[in-house]
Amino acid sequence: MTDRVAILGAGPSGLAQLRAFEAARRDGADIPEIVCYEKQNDWGGMWNYTWRTGLDAYGEPVHGSMYRYLWSNGPKECLEFADYSFEEHFGRPIASYPPRAVLRDYIMGRVAKSNVRQYIQFNTAVHWVAYDEASAKFTVTVRDLKQDQLSSEEFDHVIVATGHFSTPNAPYFAGLEQFPGRVLHAHDFRDACEFAGKDLLLIGSSYSAEDIGTQCHKYGAKSVTFSYRSKPMGFDWPDSFAEVPLLTEVVDKTAHFIDGSSKDVDAIILCTGYQHHFPFLPDELTLNTHNRLYPEGLYKGIVSLANPKLIFLGMQDQYYTFNMFDAQAWYARDLMLGRIKLPSDEAMLADTKQWVAREEQTANPSDEIDFQAAYIVDLLAPTDYPPFDVTAVAETFKAWEHDKEADILGYRNKSYRSTITGTQAPKHHTHWMEAMDDSLAAFLHGEPQPEKKLA
Amino acid sequence: MTDRVAILGAGPSGLAQLRAFEAARRDGADIPEIVCYEKQNDWGGMWNYTWRTGLDAYGEPVHGSMYRYLWSNGPKECLEFADYSFEEHFGRPIASYPPRAVLRDYIMGRVAKSNVRQYIQFNTAVHWVAYDEASAKFTVTVRDLKQDQLSSEEFDHVIVATGHFSTPNAPYFAGLEQFPGRVLHAHDFRDACEFAGKDLLLIGSSYSAEDIGTQCHKYGAKSVTFSYRSKPMGFDWPDSFAEVPLLTEVVDKTAHFIDGSSKDVDAIILCTGYQHHFPFLPDELTLNTHNRLYPEGLYKGIVSLANPKLIFLGMQDQYYTFNMFDAQAWYARDLMLGRIKLPSDEAMLADTKQWVAREEQTANPSDEIDFQAAYIVDLLAPTDYPPFDVTAVAETFKAWEHDKEADILGYRNKSYRSTITGTQAPKHHTHWMEAMDDSLAAFLHGEPQPEKKLA
Repeated sequence: MTDRVAILGAGPSGLAQLRAFEAARRDGADIPEIVCYEKQNDWGGMWNYTWRTGLDAYGEPVHGSMYRYLWSNGPKECLEFADYSFEEHFGRPIASYPPRAVLRDYIMGRVAKSNVRQYIQFNTAVHWVAYDEASAKFTVTVRDLKQDQLSSEEFDHVIVATGHFSTPNAPYFAGLEQFPGRVLHAHDFRDACEFAGKDLLLIGSSYSAEDIGTQCHKYGAKSVTFSYRSKPMGFDWPDSFAEVPLLTEVVDKTAHFIDGSSKDVDAIILCTGYQHHFPFLPDELTLNTHNRLYPEGLYKGIVSLANPKLIFLGMQDQYYTFNMFDAQAWYARDLMLGRIKLPSDEAMLADTKQWVAREEQTANPSDEIDFQAAYIVDLLAPTDYPPFDVTAVAETFKAWEHDKEADILGYRNKSYRSTITGTQAPKHHTHWMEAMDDSLAAFLHGEPQPEKKLA
Repeated sequence: MTDRVAILGAGPSGLAQLRAFEAARRDGADIPEIVCYEKQNDWGGMWNYTWRTGLDAYGEPVHGSMYRYLWSNGPKECLEFADYSFEEHFGRPIASYPPRAVLRDYIMGRVAKSNVRQYIQFNTAVHWVAYDEASAKFTVTVRDLKQDQLSSEEFDHVIVATGHFSTPNAPYFAGLEQFPGRVLHAHDFRDACEFAGKDLLLIGSSYSAEDIGTQCHKYGAKSVTFSYRSKPMGFDWPDSFAEVPLLTEVVDKTAHFIDGSSKDVDAIILCTGYQHHFPFLPDELTLNTHNRLYPEGLYKGIVSLANPKLIFLGMQDQYYTFNMFDAQAWYARDLMLGRIKLPSDEAMLADTKQWVAREEQTANPSDEIDFQAAYIVDLLAPTDYPPFDVTAVAETFKAWEHDKEADILGYRNKSYRSTITGTQAPKHHTHWMEAMDDSLAAFLHGEPQPEKKLA
């Protein structure tokens, strides 16, 4: 059994790892000594909204990419923990598409009931991880941000749970340096109200573009133009939306596109994705991957082939989220507890290659959902994670894809059945396009917005 | 003599160091082997405008805090190099307050004529500096950003020339997380056009607040409210400006101040200064200081008392800039060439304490200018830097202070005499408030703006 484990990050993945160990401890297992390092002053990772952009109060890159008025873009039934239902947390069924504050409350509710907070060192950024072959130990060097002091400790295992939606991928387009308005990456987007009455250009055709575009429309943007590299999203957009091919250059306020068309815009938002970025890992330990369902170099999607005592959680492109992180954390825990044995290096490489090849056969979202479901089923098989119907969740994902395709501004009014409790979610009290207040109180209790209280 | 020197940063200070060595080499001296590491893809440091904010293309913090339409906020006669006049560079006298592109052209012009570019490794970020007592060498570890690879080299001296206007100091104010508009630090301010027609709140009462506020006014902001902690700037502002005491909280769009007043605003800009930030230095080598004229811990304002082979350039609060960096670089060069000998540790500490105490006696800008002039005279005395009349420059600074006090929107229309060439600068062809095009061509040749060309 391993003696000391470092968990880097106390977001959903890091918390899943803490909870996995906690579940074993409650069942009577001996667990290793755990230290979890968290740069922010609270747990929750990306789910902690911050008004800050760029660098934080200590000069560290801001982790959060969350923005105000963000509502789940998938049904909550697809991310429900098998050992902690939404119904258990809220004491009653709730609607299928909660806003950020409600989801955060749910994730935090589970860990708050455990005693894992004691393991976390907050305001502590990971500076460097080194591995010594001779001692077979990792040295993790961290910076206490409040004291601005470095210190180091040794560990047998390191769990990288730092996420991959924090470091923007921001390509240059000709003329951006002369554009007389704001140019930002989605990572720095915070409040759609800033863009009310504006003509917006969003570069990109994935989740960030789709969601930031619809948010801005909801909060009063005059028009939203999406510029895509390969293909349009193709939703049935309202009249104030347009999809055009790739931006070629910006001249003053005019954006020119590769098809010869142009559009005058007031702000440009680069919804061009994120980089997997591990500035605290030496070249020989780092993970080099783009955002894909099965990153090369990770056995079972988590174990570094470069050093199997180094584990990465949540580094894949995600349909499944919280419950997949749980599956990964339970598997990782059982490795560290010696309950699961790793095969030979050759066998790990062969298994990984097989999964990567299988991913490359997927042709559409439905295939991709089935692929990730199969991955999770494979991970859970040897663990004692509470049974959950991965395949039924996959079907809910497919229903969601269909509902979104049918109505991009209305799909969040739909409801789905929990595979954990069997309960069909109630309809929400307000249509999403009219639900301007994204607070927990407004969502749960239908409390009117402050403005209406005064009226 | 030292064998190998690392210069961290190729901005004005790092370039001054390269030029100082180059001047010695041209005079026949043997100079050390030099490597200059620069994170950006070109030299110029802060003077390279970037449209990027937050993190750069490689996930590194963006160095630049420069914004479009920035004009020098002091007379060019106060920052002229003694060995390279503006008149020499531009072939004729130019007006006293040039915009960014013109100043950049001047700084770059001097280094472009040398052969120092060969020493610079671009796209290379400093990751870590360690000092080994036994070998008396520094190991500098850098990241090749394009290859995403680390490598290390040993040096006898390390020159830290990374600046101190890159890491924002951004305090929290109650309610910022709910403010329905943009909240940014001055570091991320890029284009005043974004704020046309808006009511702006700027927190701070130093150069950033004053200059960003006037820029935004020039480019159409509806109103500018400055919130100060200790005292107002007190200029004779136009009617659309106000100075109010410190912000206490923001409720929706309403900013509340400590005197009970309030103002509805559309955007909030934190002009709250910068942190000296050296994440690549271990605790025992780092410089801990706020922005002051004589940082504690630096002999002659440059030599680390913790390790005298570690030198910091340009880390003080600045009236004098480029010419002070030259004075520092010439002194540092002569130390490394063995032309100047360091006294004992005790003597260095006593000298530093004396200067720090003297700074603490300064009571107003005039005192501060005289203090910094005296510091530069002291630095230059033992070097062969071309003679320049530091005291005459101090008088120009005082005239500038007076002119700014008299007319905050009009002081940039004034002109001053070069202490290098004796030439009185010509008046600029356009009043600053009407000079909307900040390009080099518009400034030098009075070329009309593109819009007017079309008319």
